[in-house]
Amino acid sequence: MITFDTRPDHYKHWQLSFDGPIATLSMDVREDAGLSPDYKLKLNSYDLGVDIELADAIQRIRFEHPEVRTVIVTSLKERIFCAGANIMMLRGSSHGAKVNFCKFTNETRLAIEDASANSGLKFLAALNGICAGGGYELALACDEIVLVDDGNSAVSLPEAPLLGVLPGTGGLTRVVDKRRVRRDLADFFSTLVEGVKGKRAVEWKLVDAVYPTSQFKDAVRTRAEALAAASDRHAAGPGIALNPLNPTVADGGYTYSAVTITFNRGRRTAELTVHAPTGPQPSTPQEISSAGDQFWPLRAFRELDDALLRLRVNEPEIGTVLIRTEGDRDAVLGIDRTLVEHQSHWLVREIVLFMKRTLKRMDLTARTFFALIEPGSAFAGSLFELALAADRSYMLHDDNEENVIALSPMNGRLRAEGASASLAEAGRDRATAEAGGPLPMSNGLTRLQTRFLHDAAKVDDILAHEGPFNAAEAEEAGLVTFAPDEIDWDDEIRVAVEARAAFSPDAMTGLEANLRFAGPETLETKIFGRLTAWQNWIFQRPNAVGEKGALKAYGEQGRPEFDWKRT
Amino acid sequence: MITFDTRPDHYKHWQLSFDGPIATLSMDVREDAGLSPDYKLKLNSYDLGVDIELADAIQRIRFEHPEVRTVIVTSLKERIFCAGANIMMLRGSSHGAKVNFCKFTNETRLAIEDASANSGLKFLAALNGICAGGGYELALACDEIVLVDDGNSAVSLPEAPLLGVLPGTGGLTRVVDKRRVRRDLADFFSTLVEGVKGKRAVEWKLVDAVYPTSQFKDAVRTRAEALAAASDRHAAGPGIALNPLNPTVADGGYTYSAVTITFNRGRRTAELTVHAPTGPQPSTPQEISSAGDQFWPLRAFRELDDALLRLRVNEPEIGTVLIRTEGDRDAVLGIDRTLVEHQSHWLVREIVLFMKRTLKRMDLTARTFFALIEPGSAFAGSLFELALAADRSYMLHDDNEENVIALSPMNGRLRAEGASASLAEAGRDRATAEAGGPLPMSNGLTRLQTRFLHDAAKVDDILAHEGPFNAAEAEEAGLVTFAPDEIDWDDEIRVAVEARAAFSPDAMTGLEANLRFAGPETLETKIFGRLTAWQNWIFQRPNAVGEKGALKAYGEQGRPEFDWKRT
Repeated sequence: MITFDTRPDHYKHWQLSFDGPIATLSMDVREDAGLSPDYKLKLNSYDLGVDIELADAIQRIRFEHPEVRTVIVTSLKERIFCAGANIMMLRGSSHGAKVNFCKFTNETRLAIEDASANSGLKFLAALNGICAGGGYELALACDEIVLVDDGNSAVSLPEAPLLGVLPGTGGLTRVVDKRRVRRDLADFFSTLVEGVKGKRAVEWKLVDAVYPTSQFKDAVRTRAEALAAASDRHAAGPGIALNPLNPTVADGGYTYSAVTITFNRGRRTAELTVHAPTGPQPSTPQEISSAGDQFWPLRAFRELDDALLRLRVNEPEIGTVLIRTEGDRDAVLGIDRTLVEHQSHWLVREIVLFMKRTLKRMDLTARTFFALIEPGSAFAGSLFELALAADRSYMLHDDNEENVIALSPMNGRLRAEGASASLAEAGRDRATAEAGGPLPMSNGLTRLQTRFLHDAAKVDDILAHEGPFNAAEAEEAGLVTFAPDEIDWDDEIRVAVEARAAFSPDAMTGLEANLRFAGPETLETKIFGRLTAWQNWIFQRPNAVGEKGALKAYGEQGRPEFDWKRT
Repeated sequence: MITFDTRPDHYKHWQLSFDGPIATLSMDVREDAGLSPDYKLKLNSYDLGVDIELADAIQRIRFEHPEVRTVIVTSLKERIFCAGANIMMLRGSSHGAKVNFCKFTNETRLAIEDASANSGLKFLAALNGICAGGGYELALACDEIVLVDDGNSAVSLPEAPLLGVLPGTGGLTRVVDKRRVRRDLADFFSTLVEGVKGKRAVEWKLVDAVYPTSQFKDAVRTRAEALAAASDRHAAGPGIALNPLNPTVADGGYTYSAVTITFNRGRRTAELTVHAPTGPQPSTPQEISSAGDQFWPLRAFRELDDALLRLRVNEPEIGTVLIRTEGDRDAVLGIDRTLVEHQSHWLVREIVLFMKRTLKRMDLTARTFFALIEPGSAFAGSLFELALAADRSYMLHDDNEENVIALSPMNGRLRAEGASASLAEAGRDRATAEAGGPLPMSNGLTRLQTRFLHDAAKVDDILAHEGPFNAAEAEEAGLVTFAPDEIDWDDEIRVAVEARAAFSPDAMTGLEANLRFAGPETLETKIFGRLTAWQNWIFQRPNAVGEKGALKAYGEQGRPEFDWKRT
């Protein structure tokens, strides 16, 4: 089973060091420490295991090292920054494994950009050598890219010419949309195995600067300090430790402190339950800092995140997930009030940003989610986002009308709630401040805004509603999909789940990938919608993965053989 | 060979009738008149041949019938509007044929929306019976949808539950993005084989109204008249006839009056040349109307459009197209001046909109385009858009510096050019008026704006440039990719073309689909980028097209068998 928990003293492939406001994250991949013994991770090439450590390092810098303002991403290998995703690993992977690998690496790169946009944590890619494929895609996620000018080191995206696939970690999108490389130059660059180096790399905007070997180290330091000086990251500390989650893992599911997931493999379904907090909760920054990673929203969403990741890679046949919540609704609303009240505190901000990323992870998980809202549930505020993220929600219309849901400012735009300094403003993400609220989707809108697309009045009405919604009210307001009564509930849920589980899993993945992201597209949704979908297509094509395909032929005798038909 | 030329008295599947400002386009598919004898077009199901007639009819209403303001789209079959794309046709089609079919039908639906947005031609889908799959997608392209309430007639998108594929003609995108159906209701609807009818269809915004059978005809008429009354389409006529193009078709290529395309099948390349106009050209609306379809821009772009379509469906192995122009550059610039000067005349407007759609067709064609700019070429103004649409452009840096390109207001935002009433405003497409100029791409930006993304000052500078650009100036301005000198020219072109032709055709399709559409995504680019890419993926998956896949199993004994892994 692949797991996602790690920590710096367990890292095999990265070194993380700190020097005041500057952290250095150095890639030094151990060839023989891949997730599988079937390949060697030569030349700082990577597999999912390498990326899990990278994701962990970035997360820890955010929570454990609030004093850091710049992260230098570099390599400890001579003349090699990173050769990209390991090709033998890709070649030996199933289609699903390739897709999941790309998705996770994409989420990690976007987490870097999220830290830059919303936490003031700036990233400098210091390319001390060859930087190819996924290595360059990692660099593209950074705020600045500098390249050593040693006559040899180049940046490249050789996937298309060499392997017959796309750079699948956002490379094409970031080249034209983020770095604004001209599309014709990008076309040329993306078909050039040897890549581009030196002055041309700067002229084409592929990198920000090149420096001779003798000046490289000093120049990196100087730029890192300039980035740190320009960052407005809150310097308040100390950080909090992110301790291991240590779920109980059994064949039938995983049990965490606030999250449980159980599998019914025969029906290809899972039941995922999030438990509301119990007892007194921290309500000041000091209390929250003391609680650290045990503060319920951080703990519950870290567990949810971990459960989703494990589900993705370890349980491919579980197609439908039933989402439930349990516990004290008011406790969740109380937590939300605390988060909003102290949104400008660095740790609260990081917690909310983490909740946002976890909910995005759910949006991007290729499984059907149905939310089941029953008496005793706690679908309130930030936990109600789980129902909004679901493909459908079913709410029991109980005879007593005691089954309710509730909203909080966490579901909306904080500005509209009259908060004095909005969380989004504190995060300096202007687009988010305008539209997205504290928990936006990848498309930049809140889930309520996406649900009622271009109907701001409706969203405002719903957010202005006093108190909870019972089932009839929630259905009337359009907050839940269906509200069957007690007589119909069991049958309706059973039929819906059985029907869903019987559909083509590919059709459901495609359907959900289209319906979940109504409204604007962003760099982020372009990466997951457009680029990923094309890559998924190519990953199935005989020209890539067939016996004579480019991915299979790479490194072997002879050239690939293609079916030349263009489609 | 599949051809795209047709005319109303040749239609097999549609009847087109006129009654003042209201045209009626009635589907009446002939079962035994499919493009292939392998399937029967039962229940008003369609194949590419049916859609070629639909595209032709819409085109003709625009050019031949300027008096029409509303088009009623309905069916002559009892209790059946349209059953969607023919499933046996899809089942028997190659992957490439399926993809090309979906692309063309998407372009046809978008042409309906273009006519509504920019020509004031309103469409009313009058669903007189069952409306399934692609039939409903056709309705979604219309401005209004009314459905008969007979207890049986429903709208549905049964592709996912029934066939294991997506509604591939924009259905999912239009349901949530255009009609703003809530995503959870859209999810439910898109998994419901029987669809939704009656009051629920209205409540969910799937249709605009339902009427009992007894009132249906009158209600349709009333709504059509209301749409006509609200339209501000110019009523000036008479229209002009669109005569057959009649190219000379040989194995080596096609020859039209202003366009030639020749194939080198051994190298998998084509050379496409557009010839500038010669002799005196019409310069007033009266002269343009008299010239009719022989007016050069309409004639040349109709020929270009036809050549691209024939290439797509009949020459799948031609992967790389070299674009050239020949003739009098100033004649093209003169035409552009005439188009801009008379942009508010209905026919000029239609011609420019047609040029726009043809250039979009090029952007969306899954072939590599390299523009070759040599002495004697006419890459000026609207013809320079061909170079901007190309993946790369090579401009010969001749010793005499006589090889030049030139821009015109057709490459820019007309408003910036000081035109008194902008073409885009006349077209009432506000987004276009703000950003896109007369020849925007699917992303809403001009090709210059996309090329220099978020650098409006650069675009303005280039448009303000007086006179033509020689090769050095064009390269410096970023208007061409490379400008080799006479010594290098032949080798550089040869190597570039040979290298391109040797790459995986799938990787090139994916690469181009990502790099060509930098900048914003629109409903249109979502359909071609996100939705199409997912559908292409699904069209390759064994769960759809394998021996036990849903598309293969449909109509046979037994149920499909799926590989349940979610990816």
